[in-house]
Parts: sequence; structure tokens; C-alpha cells
Amino acid sequence: MGCIQSFRQCCDQPKNTNVRISLPAVCFVWQLAMIILFGFFIRYNAESDVHWKQENKNISRSDIENDFYFRYPSFQDVHVMIFVGFGFLMTFLKRYSFGAVGFNLLIAAFGLQWALLMQGWFHSLDPMDGKIKIGVESMINADFCVASCLIAYGAVLGKVSPVQLMVMTLFGVTLYAVEEYIILNLIHARDAGGSMVIHTFGAYYGLSISWMLYRPNLDKRLNGSVYHSDVFAMIGTLFLWMFWPSFNSAISYHGDGQHRAAINTYLSLAATVLTTVAISSLSQKAGKLDMVIHLTFTTTSVGTAAEFMLMPYGSLIVGFCCGIISTLGYIYLTPFMEKYLKIQDTCGIHNLHAMPGVIGGIVGAITAAAASEGVYGKEGLKTVFDFTGKWENMLPTQQGGHQAAGLCVALCFGIGGGILVGCVLRLPIWGDAPDDHCFDDENAHYLGKSTSVF
Amino acid sequence: MGCIQSFRQCCDQPKNTNVRISLPAVCFVWQLAMIILFGFFIRYNAESDVHWKQENKNISRSDIENDFYFRYPSFQDVHVMIFVGFGFLMTFLKRYSFGAVGFNLLIAAFGLQWALLMQGWFHSLDPMDGKIKIGVESMINADFCVASCLIAYGAVLGKVSPVQLMVMTLFGVTLYAVEEYIILNLIHARDAGGSMVIHTFGAYYGLSISWMLYRPNLDKRLNGSVYHSDVFAMIGTLFLWMFWPSFNSAISYHGDGQHRAAINTYLSLAATVLTTVAISSLSQKAGKLDMVIHLTFTTTSVGTAAEFMLMPYGSLIVGFCCGIISTLGYIYLTPFMEKYLKIQDTCGIHNLHAMPGVIGGIVGAITAAAASEGVYGKEGLKTVFDFTGKWENMLPTQQGGHQAAGLCVALCFGIGGGILVGCVLRLPIWGDAPDDHCFDDENAHYLGKSTSVF
Amino acid sequence: MGCIQSFRQCCDQPKNTNVRISLPAVCFVWQLAMIILFGFFIRYNAESDVHWKQENKNISRSDIENDFYFRYPSFQDVHVMIFVGFGFLMTFLKRYSFGAVGFNLLIAAFGLQWALLMQGWFHSLDPMDGKIKIGVESMINADFCVASCLIAYGAVLGKVSPVQLMVMTLFGVTLYAVEEYIILNLIHARDAGGSMVIHTFGAYYGLSISWMLYRPNLDKRLNGSVYHSDVFAMIGTLFLWMFWPSFNSAISYHGDGQHRAAINTYLSLAATVLTTVAISSLSQKAGKLDMVIHLTFTTTSVGTAAEFMLMPYGSLIVGFCCGIISTLGYIYLTPFMEKYLKIQDTCGIHNLHAMPGVIGGIVGAITAAAASEGVYGKEGLKTVFDFTGKWENMLPTQQGGHQAAGLCVALCFGIGGGILVGCVLRLPIWGDAPDDHCFDDENAHYLGKSTSVF
Repeated sequence: MGCIQSFRQCCDQPKNTNVRISLPAVCFVWQLAMIILFGFFIRYNAESDVHWKQENKNISRSDIENDFYFRYPSFQDVHVMIFVGFGFLMTFLKRYSFGAVGFNLLIAAFGLQWALLMQGWFHSLDPMDGKIKIGVESMINADFCVASCLIAYGAVLGKVSPVQLMVMTLFGVTLYAVEEYIILNLIHARDAGGSMVIHTFGAYYGLSISWMLYRPNLDKRLNGSVYHSDVFAMIGTLFLWMFWPSFNSAISYHGDGQHRAAINTYLSLAATVLTTVAISSLSQKAGKLDMVIHLTFTTTSVGTAAEFMLMPYGSLIVGFCCGIISTLGYIYLTPFMEKYLKIQDTCGIHNLHAMPGVIGGIVGAITAAAASEGVYGKEGLKTVFDFTGKWENMLPTQQGGHQAAGLCVALCFGIGGGILVGCVLRLPIWGDAPDDHCFDDENAHYLGKSTSVF
Repeated sequence: MGCIQSFRQCCDQPKNTNVRISLPAVCFVWQLAMIILFGFFIRYNAESDVHWKQENKNISRSDIENDFYFRYPSFQDVHVMIFVGFGFLMTFLKRYSFGAVGFNLLIAAFGLQWALLMQGWFHSLDPMDGKIKIGVESMINADFCVASCLIAYGAVLGKVSPVQLMVMTLFGVTLYAVEEYIILNLIHARDAGGSMVIHTFGAYYGLSISWMLYRPNLDKRLNGSVYHSDVFAMIGTLFLWMFWPSFNSAISYHGDGQHRAAINTYLSLAATVLTTVAISSLSQKAGKLDMVIHLTFTTTSVGTAAEFMLMPYGSLIVGFCCGIISTLGYIYLTPFMEKYLKIQDTCGIHNLHAMPGVIGGIVGAITAAAASEGVYGKEGLKTVFDFTGKWENMLPTQQGGHQAAGLCVALCFGIGGGILVGCVLRLPIWGDAPDDHCFDDENAHYLGKSTSVF
Repeated sequence: MGCIQSFRQCCDQPKNTNVRISLPAVCFVWQLAMIILFGFFIRYNAESDVHWKQENKNISRSDIENDFYFRYPSFQDVHVMIFVGFGFLMTFLKRYSFGAVGFNLLIAAFGLQWALLMQGWFHSLDPMDGKIKIGVESMINADFCVASCLIAYGAVLGKVSPVQLMVMTLFGVTLYAVEEYIILNLIHARDAGGSMVIHTFGAYYGLSISWMLYRPNLDKRLNGSVYHSDVFAMIGTLFLWMFWPSFNSAISYHGDGQHRAAINTYLSLAATVLTTVAISSLSQKAGKLDMVIHLTFTTTSVGTAAEFMLMPYGSLIVGFCCGIISTLGYIYLTPFMEKYLKIQDTCGIHNLHAMPGVIGGIVGAITAAAASEGVYGKEGLKTVFDFTGKWENMLPTQQGGHQAAGLCVALCFGIGGGILVGCVLRLPIWGDAPDDHCFDDENAHYLGKSTSVF
């Protein structure tokens, strides 16, 4: 702890927001690197290759059986969540809407390319020719991976430079790909909606970075919303809320897997709304609602368990608890974390993603452990939990243990990775704004507008 | 009439917007009730159950034949209409955007759970085990049901408390499920796009409630729009306008049914835009357009007849007339209704939903009565009008009569139900705002923001 | 040139924005004409006709093989691009958001009806009964056609009346249908994403009109953005950016064609973001970003080549170059064009669509010429380039030449058509605003709002 503090002080030099060399350099060089790596490694998979149609005729398979038709509608919904959902959710700050939407797009656009490579090396390397074969499922997975970095962005929103965000994304995607490989392949945990892999990892990664970048003298005048910036934020909130069923069902297995994941998520989110409103109203004078708490609507804990036989009432219970915990977290925990733990969490991602992610992981472990042949059928257990190959003789109770192990890995990678990356980002070379220019587009990284806002 | 007036006066006591007990209580208790009822009654249907995949192998059916792939893209579009479409449509009020979007989400989230139960009891109760089996079609139907309550919300926007809205939704969903059962099952009318079941019922339900809650001294200073609140409202307008084809085709029968419903709606809406602009321009000095009238774009009368062989030009004619009538209604009827009928209709839902709904019902009756074997073919008539079972020998002319009967039922349920529920809502216990705090988030149910809006 | 100048002067009479006769007249008469023409010409195609289901049973084909399920999700995405994407992209002007969104909807609603007819006569006239048969693909093509007119609207945004826009759309759609027929059918060029047919044509059509309507004394005080109008514009930007993969894959051939087009576009757009940010940052003091340049994110040059075997790295390269060229165009070319070429391009469509379109056409020609049997396979070449019928013996190199010829046709139609239509629009009868009331809803074609904007 002492050494971290002294490292912090050594980094505290006057800040300069000029990124005219560093930002273009990072963008150009990294994009060129992507082109070269894609040239060496990435090719179309069988279903997006021009030979697919020919094969199709040979085995008299219908065109509609292309994975594209199973997953593309969900992919586009996920895509909307990443760019409009996360982007507009963060526009609630009165003078940082440009940074919220613009940098969100920048890091997502870089992150998804790097994710295709990193995830490809771990998951879809073709042993025949050493190439990564991509298709619609790879695109969804890349968007998922990017989501974890955008969650992390929520914690440091308004306090970092675009160059820092690019660095954070580079490492974030790398760490994500490794922890995903460990959790899904080595530990053989299931995580359809990414409660552990995406939410838990992303949130603790962001919180740890925010802790490392703690600003004791942060100017908070602009760290708040005004009437219409809250309405903009509701656009993001709603698109996230509405499309979680697509998010959770996007990479579930074909047929009843995707169908069930959508139903579970749909129900769980409805229940969350009611308890969020209840707690929010209880906590204020005259029962008034706080618009900023509405961000909490986007919370979901049906992630890992989305494709399990959670049962409709089970989904409601998960949503019910998740709404309560997240809203209480918003009211009590966020101020506590800032005051005592020195974690400044602009968007409250600890409530939106960290706690729901951990709950989701635990729900997944319990539901897996409680799975029985009576409910799932012999074949069903095999399909849902992928008890094939070397995992053929695994029991649901063991699977529950593996799920719990997966959650721990996600936590370790999030916290450990965040502290390491936070160290790097503390160096005084990245062009982040001084304390009194945080949360301000004009004084930080966007061109000034005429004084009047309308 | 006299008794209603005296009841009104007895209810007119000083109002108190404090909902700190009632709102959390309603949210918690009703959500808990939902969990218990879901536990007793609701299960996955065959296509979302884990055994589906196994069966699939037995009968060598492809995964893509799961109803999920037929309907899920439309479901997500409908979902966007419910939450972003209806929510943002109502943001046009200058200081009630929070209430519009926030309460819209609250009542939709509660309503869809209650709708799954109510509609389930009437339509999808499994006689084998007494459980309701839900799937993607149930989710669409629940969203449809909620739409009727959100339409009703449009009439009372800005004048009611969230507790009143919850009560209104509870009864609205209940009435909806009953009238839907009567219209679709007992009378055997067809209503793919819900002109009768959703629009007519919902609109008259809301108007009747608004009549019961008439406020003679309503302060109208905040009952209007400003420049950017109108732009927000265009977000809602456009998402409703664009996704009507999905709304109308979402539960049509597979294949040409869904295909035709989408085409008919697409064409009809395009025609509506031109006549709306024409009438709007005619009615103003120098032919200027009124942004608020643009809400009328969302109007559609191709509902009931969406999957019928309405023919492309028929769809255009319906849209043409609908645009004229709705816009004239906006200009002449809304002021008249407020002045003489004492119905204060904040969003003008009489123009947006009531009249288009009734026209849609009539168009449906005429189109059904005019259906001939020449156009539809013998099999086609059977498929489109579901002339099976006890309705096997029904003729298209008879069907036309049944459609008309269905419309009457929707009207009766809307008006009758609205008056009854309006009585309940008039009680001075629900926390609605006094006359001079209507249309005002800050003085009613949302936390105050700093005075500046930017 | 001289005669054009004198014609210009003869047209320069005092302007009157009153459109109270002309706008309603145009809307009514043209809509009635549409109804009559639809009555004579337009019918459902086989897949949306009620007999489809019956046939289906006869040949034991599954319902899911209806083209509706292959294309409808993409259609809805394209629909969102047309109405929300293009509409909100143009809201960046501080006082012309109503005109941007409202007129966008008006001309799109008219254009798509006229496009169904024009494209139908050229492409889907049934020789048996002389009727045009429409289905989901016709709807997508109509939306595509409308897109070219909306691109053209971008150049003249804020400077024209709704009547002029209707005239511009009438001719634009007509010209589009002709050039599309020449390019796709007579020349046999391929253009899945419409780089030539849509972007190049639309952009030069609009720029030529803008040149003809040059206003030397244009008042520019309102030709700029304010903080929140830029955020509104980001809604449009993002929906365009996110849904290009659907746009480019919407009418590709079933299966791997649609799959590959989506992947190529997805990658290309990601690369564009990074180079746009880089150039934008390089060009400003302290590396600050300019929000208006973010419109450039919507740029895509993967259009023509979307379904070709462009390879993932090829897509990245195209996006990389496209981002650089568009952004440089924005910084240097737009001011140059205004000053020296007398082209006032409000939205910068030369950067957003003209240059990317031309690049896309060239990339398409090169990729086609370079296509080899080694990469595509014999059958693949046939499918991708449609080497059937009279084109059976065509070689890829020849195809490359045809692609280049197609690009020239698009350019000629755009520039030539734009000049002709511009002549017509210069007549002083259309109700466009005088120079000092441009870019102003209130003084031009929308009802005044109270002075305060909030």
C-alpha cells in the first residue's frame, strides 16, 4: 500500500490535455497493426465463405440454416446496446455528453478488432491452416468483450483522456480473452449472458483503475445532470433495458436455448423496475423519484443462468432482489466507496454491473448445482451444460462448483488487472485533464462551443 | 349523471403528492404477488423447454423451425415501440419528460407480468397440468396488452400519480384480457394488429378515465412543448411509425400472413404522412407546419385488416383517410372535447388511437365481408379467417358481422371500464398533483433539479 | 455557363415562404395519383400472397423459407437508418431540427411509394398480367432508392421548401430507377451496398442541385450547431453507423452472401472510426476533437464490394482509407467547394457519401477484376457475380470493366440530373426561404415557438 501511495505521488505532476501527437499516433499505429494482424490471421468461416452455398447444394441443406439467420437479429440488438445503450447511458453528465458518446464509440471500434484477434487465438484457431475463422458469432463475442471495457469506462467517465481509454481497452480486451478462456474452457463454467465474464470482470477492472487514479481534489461542479441530459441518458437506459433479452440469448444454443434465455431475461428485468422504483421512492422525501437512479433499470442478474431452467418465477425473484440491492447500493454504497475506499465511480458501475454480476454468478452456480435429470432430461443436461468430451461424466453439483470457481477467476482478473493497468495509466504522459477540468468536454478534449448551449 | 357529479365533488379534497408509503407498498406487494402467482401458474412452453431439442432430433425437425425465429425480431421491434416509442412520444411536454418516460416504463413493466397471467388463464392454460405455458408469442401478446394501457396513459399524462397509474394498469390489463377473450374466442373476430382490441379499447378506456378525472381549473402553462422537447418527441414518433409493420405482423400466421401484414402497414403509414402534412399545412397561416401535429404520423388504421388481402392500393386508401381524419380531429375535435365534453386529452389519443382504431375495425369488417374465394382461394379463407372447428361453415359475410360485433365490445369495455376505474381513481388518496402542479415533474413526483435546465 | 448565370438572375425575385396552397396540393394530388397507379399496377408477390401457404403444403416446403424471414430483420434496420438515421443526422443545426426530421420523413414517405412503382416497372413487372409484384425485397429497394434522395437533401438542408423537396424527390426517384436499371441490368454491374447506385448518384445529384441553387448572400449565423443539437445528431450518426451491416447485406444473396456482407461492413466501419479520430485530432489545436466531424463516422466505402471476397483485412484497409479521405475532405474540401465552386453543402455530403461512394465503386471494380476461381470456386463466381444467362461466359476482368462503367453512369446521372432538376427548382414559385431566413424553422416552414427554447 505504501509503495502505491508513493508511486501515486511521483506521478502527480501538472497535467496537460494536449493529445495532438499521442492520440493520432495511437489510432494510426494500432489500426495499421490490426490490418497486418488481420492479414496474417483472419479469414471467413465456413458459413460466410463463398463455398458454403455450393456445399449446401451437395447436402441439400436450406439456406436458412446458416448461423447468420439464427443470430444476426440478436447481433444487431447487441450492437445497439454497445453504441447507443452504453454511449447514451453516460450522457447524463451536464457537460460531458460528447466525451460519453464519442469516446465510447472510439474504444468500442478499436476494442472489437482486437477482441476478434484475441478471442480468435483462444477459441477459433483453425488447426489446419493456423487462421482464425470468423462469422456472426465472433462478431457477437467481440461486442461482448468490448462491453466489459465500456463498463469499466463508466467508472472513470470524465476523468481520463482518449489515449488512456485506448490503453485501458488494449489491456482490458487482452485480460478478458484470457479470463474467458480460463473460465469457459479450462474450468468449463457456463456463462451465456456473461454475468461473470463480462459484468463482474469489467466492473472490477474499472473500479480498480478508478481507485488507482483517485483524485482527492476532484472538482464536482460538473459531476451532475441537468433536465435534458437526463432525458438523453434515458435513451441509453431504455435501449440497454429493452435489448438485454437479445444480449443474453445471442450466443445461447439454437432453438429452446435462445428462446428460454430471452424469456428469463424479459421477466427478470420487469421485476427489477418495480423494486428499483420502490426503493428509490422510499429513500426520498415525499416519495419522489430520482431520475439518476433510473440508470439502475439497466441492471440484470440473469446472465449466467439465462439459458438454464430458471423457471419464470425464478427469473422474477432474481430481478426482484437485483433491483433492491442495486438501488440500495446506489444510495448507500457509492458515497461510502468514495469517502472511505477512495473509489470515484462516476456512473455507479458497482451498482449497475459489479453487484448484479456477482449475484448472477452465484445464481448460476446454485441453479447449476440444483439441476436434476427430472427437470432437464438426460439429453437436456448434456446440451445445456455441454457435458461432452472429457466432461462427459460431470455431475450438476460439480458443475455448480466449477461455476463458483469461474466467478472467483473473474474477480481476480478484474481487480488484479485493474490495479496493474491503473499503475500504467497514472503516468503523467497520457493527456488527462487536471482536477478542475474533469467532466468538461470543452476544457478537456472537445472543441469549444459558443457559450450559449441553445 | 347527477350522482357522478356529486361523487366528484365529494372527492375534491386538498391534494397531497406524497407517495412515500403508497408507491413502494404497491410496487413491493404487487411484485411479490406476481412471483407467487408465477410460481403456481407459469411454465415454459414446449418450444422454450429444454426437452424441445431432444424431440427435434426424434422427428428430424430443424432448429430454425422454433417459433422464436419466426417472431423474435418482431418482438424486439414491438418492445422498442412500447418503451421508447410510447415513452418518448409523450416527452413533448416541456417539464414532464421524466414522468413520461419513467412512469411509462413502470406501468409497462408491471403490466406485462399481469398480462402474462391474465391472458394465460384465458388463452394458454394447459388442461393437462393447469399451468400457463409461455413463449415468444405470449411475450408479444403481453406487450400488446400493455400498449392499450400506455395509450390510456396518454390521455391522463401529467395529471395522475404513479400509484393511480398502477391501479389503472391493473384494471386495464384485466379488462383487456376479458374483452380480448370475448372478441377473439367467443365472437371469433380476427384482429391481427389490434385495431379493436388494443387501440379502440385503450383509447376509450383512457378518455373515460380522463373524463372522470376532469379538472376544471387545470393550470395549462406547462401543458405545451418547447423546441427540444419536440425533438425528443420525434424520437418516439419515429420509432412508433417505423415499427408498426412489425407490430401488425408480429402475431400474424407464419409465412405470407406476416409478410402481407408488414407490406400493408408499410404502405398505409406512408400515405398517412402525406395527408397529415397536407391538412396540417392547410390549417395554418402561410402553410406552416405544427410540430405537435407530427405526433399524428404514428396513427395507423391498418390493424385488424393487416393480414387480409387488403391489396396495396387498399392500404394506401386507408392511410390516406386516416391521416385526414386524425389531423382534422387534432385541430377541431380535441378543443371541442375539452370545452364541451369535459375530456382533457393531453396527448390527443382520440386522434391517435380512438378514431384510427374504430376506422381500422370498420375496414376490417368490410374487408372480411368482401372476402371471396376468388381472391383468397378455399384454403386461404380457412387460414386467414381461421374457419376451422365449430366455425368451419362460416361465410365471409357472417365474419364481417362478427368483426363489427367485436368493435362494439371493445367500445363498451373501454367506455364502461374507464368510467368504473375513473371512479376509483377519483378518491383523494392516490397522491396526484393539485391543479397548479400538473405537467410538472419537479413539483409532483420527481426530485427537483437545479433551476437551470442546462 | 453564361446562360445558366442569366437564368439564375432571372429567377432571383423576392421570396415568399407561403406554401399554404402548393404544399397541400402537391401532397394530396400526388398521393391520389399513387393510389390510382397502385390500383392499376401493384399486387402482392407470390410470397406475400394468400396462396403461398397452400403451395407450400403441396411441395412440403417449410414456412420459414419465405423470403420474409431472410430479409425482414435487415429491412427494419434499413428503415431505421432512413428515418432515424438520416433524420437525426441532420438535426445538428441549432434551429433546423424540425425541418431536418420532419421533411426527411415527408420525402421518404412519398419517395418510397413512387420508388415501388418506378423500380417495379423496370425490375419486377410480371409479363403474365402486367402487374408489379411486391414483397419484402421491393420494400428494401424502395428504402434504398429513398436513401439517395435523402443524401441529396443533406446538401440543400435548410435552404429549400418542402415543395422543392417533393419535386426533387419525384425526379430523384425517377432518375434513380433509370440509372439503377442501366447499371444493374444493362451493364450487369454488381452493387450490393449501393456505393454507385445510391451514394455516388445521390450525392452528386444533391451537390449539383445545391450548385444551381447557389445563394451568394446566405446568412450563416444559424448554420451551426449548439451543444445539445450535436448530441441529437449523434443519435442519427450512431444508428447509421450501427446498421450499415444490415444495409449492405439486406439484398445480398441468401446464406453466405448476406453473412459476408455484414462482416465486411462491420470491420470496415470500425477502422473508419480510428482514422477519422486521428485526422480530426491532428487538425486541431491541442488535438481536440470536433463533434461535427463525428458525422464522418457514418461514412462507408464497403458497398459495392460488400458481398465479394474482400477478406477481413481488405475491409479494414478500405475503412482505413475512407476515414482519412472523408475527414480531410471535411477539413479542406468543403470550404474550398463553397468558396471556389460555389457549392454550399450543408451536411458535407461530398465527404460522407460522394467520395466514399466513388471509392467504393473503384474498390468494387478492382475486387471484381481480381476475383479468381482459386478464391471463389467455379460455382462461387457464378453466384457472386451472377454469371448466368447471356453473361455466362463473362470473365472477372471484364466484370471489373463493367463495374467501372457503372460508376461512370452513376456520376453522369447524378450531375446531369441534378443540374436539370436544379434549373426547375430555381423558379421563384416554390416557397423557399429568403437568404436571411435559411436554417431557421420558425421563420421558414414551422410554427413559431415561444422565444425560450426551454
